[in-house]
Amino acid sequence: MYQFGKKIKFTLFGTSHGPCVGGILEGIPSNIEIDFNIIKKNLDLRKPSPKIGTSRVEEDIVEFIDGFHNSVTDGGPILFVIKNQNVDNSAYRCFEKTPRPGHSDLPASVKFPEHDINGGGQFSGRLTVPIVVAGSIAKHILSKNGIEISSFSRSIGNVEDKEYRDIQQAKLSEKYASRACTKELDNLMVDEIIKSKNTKDSVGGVIECIVTGLPLGFGGIWFEALDSEIAHAIFSIPACKGIEFGKGFELSKMKGSKSNDAFIFDEGVSIKTNNMGGILGGMSDGSPLIFRAVFKPTPSIGKKQETINLETMENCIIEIEGRHDPCIVPRATIIVEMMTALVILDQLVRE
Amino acid sequence: MYQFGKKIKFTLFGTSHGPCVGGILEGIPSNIEIDFNIIKKNLDLRKPSPKIGTSRVEEDIVEFIDGFHNSVTDGGPILFVIKNQNVDNSAYRCFEKTPRPGHSDLPASVKFPEHDINGGGQFSGRLTVPIVVAGSIAKHILSKNGIEISSFSRSIGNVEDKEYRDIQQAKLSEKYASRACTKELDNLMVDEIIKSKNTKDSVGGVIECIVTGLPLGFGGIWFEALDSEIAHAIFSIPACKGIEFGKGFELSKMKGSKSNDAFIFDEGVSIKTNNMGGILGGMSDGSPLIFRAVFKPTPSIGKKQETINLETMENCIIEIEGRHDPCIVPRATIIVEMMTALVILDQLVRE
Amino acid sequence: MYQFGKKIKFTLFGTSHGPCVGGILEGIPSNIEIDFNIIKKNLDLRKPSPKIGTSRVEEDIVEFIDGFHNSVTDGGPILFVIKNQNVDNSAYRCFEKTPRPGHSDLPASVKFPEHDINGGGQFSGRLTVPIVVAGSIAKHILSKNGIEISSFSRSIGNVEDKEYRDIQQAKLSEKYASRACTKELDNLMVDEIIKSKNTKDSVGGVIECIVTGLPLGFGGIWFEALDSEIAHAIFSIPACKGIEFGKGFELSKMKGSKSNDAFIFDEGVSIKTNNMGGILGGMSDGSPLIFRAVFKPTPSIGKKQETINLETMENCIIEIEGRHDPCIVPRATIIVEMMTALVILDQLVRE
Amino acid sequence: MYQFGKKIKFTLFGTSHGPCVGGILEGIPSNIEIDFNIIKKNLDLRKPSPKIGTSRVEEDIVEFIDGFHNSVTDGGPILFVIKNQNVDNSAYRCFEKTPRPGHSDLPASVKFPEHDINGGGQFSGRLTVPIVVAGSIAKHILSKNGIEISSFSRSIGNVEDKEYRDIQQAKLSEKYASRACTKELDNLMVDEIIKSKNTKDSVGGVIECIVTGLPLGFGGIWFEALDSEIAHAIFSIPACKGIEFGKGFELSKMKGSKSNDAFIFDEGVSIKTNNMGGILGGMSDGSPLIFRAVFKPTPSIGKKQETINLETMENCIIEIEGRHDPCIVPRATIIVEMMTALVILDQLVRE
Repeated sequence: MYQFGKKIKFTLFGTSHGPCVGGILEGIPSNIEIDFNIIKKNLDLRKPSPKIGTSRVEEDIVEFIDGFHNSVTDGGPILFVIKNQNVDNSAYRCFEKTPRPGHSDLPASVKFPEHDINGGGQFSGRLTVPIVVAGSIAKHILSKNGIEISSFSRSIGNVEDKEYRDIQQAKLSEKYASRACTKELDNLMVDEIIKSKNTKDSVGGVIECIVTGLPLGFGGIWFEALDSEIAHAIFSIPACKGIEFGKGFELSKMKGSKSNDAFIFDEGVSIKTNNMGGILGGMSDGSPLIFRAVFKPTPSIGKKQETINLETMENCIIEIEGRHDPCIVPRATIIVEMMTALVILDQLVRE
Repeated sequence: MYQFGKKIKFTLFGTSHGPCVGGILEGIPSNIEIDFNIIKKNLDLRKPSPKIGTSRVEEDIVEFIDGFHNSVTDGGPILFVIKNQNVDNSAYRCFEKTPRPGHSDLPASVKFPEHDINGGGQFSGRLTVPIVVAGSIAKHILSKNGIEISSFSRSIGNVEDKEYRDIQQAKLSEKYASRACTKELDNLMVDEIIKSKNTKDSVGGVIECIVTGLPLGFGGIWFEALDSEIAHAIFSIPACKGIEFGKGFELSKMKGSKSNDAFIFDEGVSIKTNNMGGILGGMSDGSPLIFRAVFKPTPSIGKKQETINLETMENCIIEIEGRHDPCIVPRATIIVEMMTALVILDQLVRE
Repeated sequence: MYQFGKKIKFTLFGTSHGPCVGGILEGIPSNIEIDFNIIKKNLDLRKPSPKIGTSRVEEDIVEFIDGFHNSVTDGGPILFVIKNQNVDNSAYRCFEKTPRPGHSDLPASVKFPEHDINGGGQFSGRLTVPIVVAGSIAKHILSKNGIEISSFSRSIGNVEDKEYRDIQQAKLSEKYASRACTKELDNLMVDEIIKSKNTKDSVGGVIECIVTGLPLGFGGIWFEALDSEIAHAIFSIPACKGIEFGKGFELSKMKGSKSNDAFIFDEGVSIKTNNMGGILGGMSDGSPLIFRAVFKPTPSIGKKQETINLETMENCIIEIEGRHDPCIVPRATIIVEMMTALVILDQLVRE
Repeated sequence: MYQFGKKIKFTLFGTSHGPCVGGILEGIPSNIEIDFNIIKKNLDLRKPSPKIGTSRVEEDIVEFIDGFHNSVTDGGPILFVIKNQNVDNSAYRCFEKTPRPGHSDLPASVKFPEHDINGGGQFSGRLTVPIVVAGSIAKHILSKNGIEISSFSRSIGNVEDKEYRDIQQAKLSEKYASRACTKELDNLMVDEIIKSKNTKDSVGGVIECIVTGLPLGFGGIWFEALDSEIAHAIFSIPACKGIEFGKGFELSKMKGSKSNDAFIFDEGVSIKTNNMGGILGGMSDGSPLIFRAVFKPTPSIGKKQETINLETMENCIIEIEGRHDPCIVPRATIIVEMMTALVILDQLVRE
């Protein structure tokens, strides 16, 4: 059981090889009607595309146990489970002996000695299913408050989208397997992924996320800063290795006279540029909030890799069989949106 | 009052213009002897260097109210205050009317309408003084557990340290005004800062932090992942705009066969490279933990800037007078160490 | 959703007229085998006895959703639900208009305006079912640590058990409908209850609870005092109106020289009397912990009662139809044990 | 450090023999003016009366470190300390060896092995000073919301006040050393106390507390029930051994037709009797909330008592020298009010 949030508290539970995964979402007000099709749509965005993803696809049926009266929230905690259908974990047993490079197998074997009993499934990407369910509800409520969230693939491998994208363009990415913003970029990114796949390799990338509709002053300071809480949320997604807001790491080389976003009047208080990614001192400056997160190449690859055998204490070589996503970025895009939605709704309720 | 941490709970309070700033550190075991000189040393590292910083220097006298018996912890919460000596906030009053670009003045005026009464001082960098006090205690305890933390200036403006640095080299940075690792780099970085200062401008940079001694498996998963909690901590430092672990954003262009760190036996389990920055799945892989954080150029600059007058609702120009740090990076370096120490001690106690 | 406890955290959810009631029990260590028959046995003790209780009996089937691997705890949160089988709440609708004296109808109609929508079922005694499930697990673990808990009916109406009872005698009460300690007292108490029932009236009583095996010093101080937390727990059971430890209210008339329990050596540190109910300064003094709680007469009675009609704003008379327990004490006995078990396990884990 | 409350969070710290005692009160809104004379008045009520109490009287000077701007709350946490003036704990050292009957010495020596270092002062009644400070602020805010709290001595030893008392009469008790409601009762109660004192003995009693102005429906259910939280609060005061609401333990012998308080219209919804002490199902029924708490005789008495010598492991006799309160009831009266105020303000803020 893993908990996140202060007022909107999300609890994640289950393992990939146990009976179910699920979540509890506390703090959602009563009398909000939820369109369950939105949850299904977001769960579909999480699934691997047949073109570029793993071929193992499970149907995710969400069972709501508490929190709704018909499809309207009743003000109590929303409790839901998604039963696991395929709980054969025999394929993973060997990795306890010969940990996969880039995976959590090795540290997990030390931290969770009873790891083998539970099937290690608490590290599984399958736990992102409840995140999508909870995040969909959060995003839906934010949308009713005029706050929109969308993300897309800014780069995959060496293919980079160099254009500025607004939230409308970001939303178009839902149509494309790679979560690129345009058909052309999607072709290039899909090729980049397939190229890796064909060489039994994998590739990383960068996801950009945009939030619009945040009022000036939205957020918090110090440990409740909006960027601080978003960073916490996004890094809790496995494979994330970095995050930056606005110009991010480029700011290290800029002068203050260039990086400071000037204020102007333009039918209300406005901001000329958006180098800060919409955040000043942990609070929204009224511009769109923009951040980018980097996701590492999928560690599971078919190529031969050096590792160690923990029983014989000898160096050895492994080849990881089975079908894995050669690039996690397209599927991680919706997870980035969902975690962002949970943070922002939590901050909204605190206001 | 701002709270951080789960088992080692740190509470930050006060404002720059009120009677004091201070903190409460809960969860520290009893019978630990603290060398108060270490706290003083770290507070000195936080102070601006006369060469490159603001000339306004306050003596920080820490008064411990509870939690110690002589200089030994008594197992209770450690409560301390640092009295403010210079509480004249008249100089800041004008910024309520004409908010400074790049500063929190504008969102703060909306979020905290009673801002003017309190003197806005809760956003002040002065609140990093209690962070240094608490972090010094945490770092001291970690050190007794074989865990060392050090950080240094990886880059300032266009001056970049391109060498790999281990923790011993990082520690040498304490001698240099810019927190560079070598005399040569310090000269270059100090020049870069002074150049900005002379043009009434400011400059940003990147801080790198190294943690050694973390045992394999140290950390957590999902919302308690070690990198997730560190990211939260570092982004709570004002002016941080990005963080990356290991190869960070470079990983987006790498292949998995290249980015995965191979395991080998070498007098125990070891790791050939350290592209992951010592973290796999939220837990330590036994290598040094390495991350970098970017800090934006100081927003307070002497150059003319465009802003708005909130009373007249007209565009206007401001020039910010007084002496400000032309680069926050050297002083932020110790704060990065301190926040990291708080996170890691909190995780250590949870183990 | 209602939460209780610090380290052993119990969350209660559901309503009597929704799809289910259930609970989440967090903090239970892994690898503990639970005999599910114990839970069933305790749920049976909660059911009304055919002789003296309501005739409406529901089968309580507990479905464990997470937290067990076979019948062994897996260290994660234990999540369980009990589906409601009879969700017809039409019979209760009228009480929204003419609130029942002694019931929560009137204050609930003000505090929960959407009360009618949810069927008001969150006040229902049906929510004590999850308390029994969680408490049974807690009591089982305590038992393995040498800590036993048992309670019995000290008095019902004017029938009072005037003997000192040890825990072995208390346990015998599980055999009797009234939860008296002996057959003779059971006959008298059952008569007292039936006498009330026959006059369409109800009757109250006192439950005594004994805890043995607490080590000297077990508990806490101030807000974590053992008696403080037990009082909190027992008062959260509907209908409880008082609690006292040891000699309780009699102590008001005693002298210190009489009330103080003298310490003696008798194969270890021992205590001559037990006027303090086994508690000194919030901690166990090593003697059996003894407390008594008073439960008011069931407010639902067949006799005519004065109340008001909230629609017409006029005084009126109601007669409550249907079958209700004429005395809640026998069924509340197991709930007292369960809540006590949750508190003590929570304190045990904190030690 | 001991914490209490959910939204209004009170943290108590310090020891009687350390540098200070103090507290932190979180959740108090900004812009509330506090009359510090009220705090002083309540601190005076806590002090022993020269006629019947211990002769050791310390001046309590409260130093507010944070949370006020002039005498107006600033919305942040209120942090205050009261320095200890007399920290000689040598007199108490001997009780570590020969624990006093009725005191926490024995369990504390097991629970807190470093007890001797700290001087055991965390159990000290001196920690009720910060409770008075925080409670005074809470009570003051409640008063501005039309909620009044007052308590008085219902009985001391064999002297019992048998009249019904309303809150106006309860308030009169502030004039009398025994906290009786009338001059006559005060004479009798003072005599009862002095009689005990003269025989080197002590005596207990019962405090009654009345709260008026709670709106219908005020409170919570299950673990947040108003009576549940009050019971928790009052039992956290050392020496409390029982609590009852309304008719309390008498209800065990009553019939439902007698105990149920009938509703009537009388310029609004009203209640004919108040057997329930103003609470139905954890919420206010709009009548005055009434409860009584029993406090045991002061355990420190001059008479010879049997105890054990923990070093020689032999039975022995102690005579406790020095001057102690022969009855704790008069001084505990204000503490009961203060803890009640903290609970009710916490519930008020949650509404």
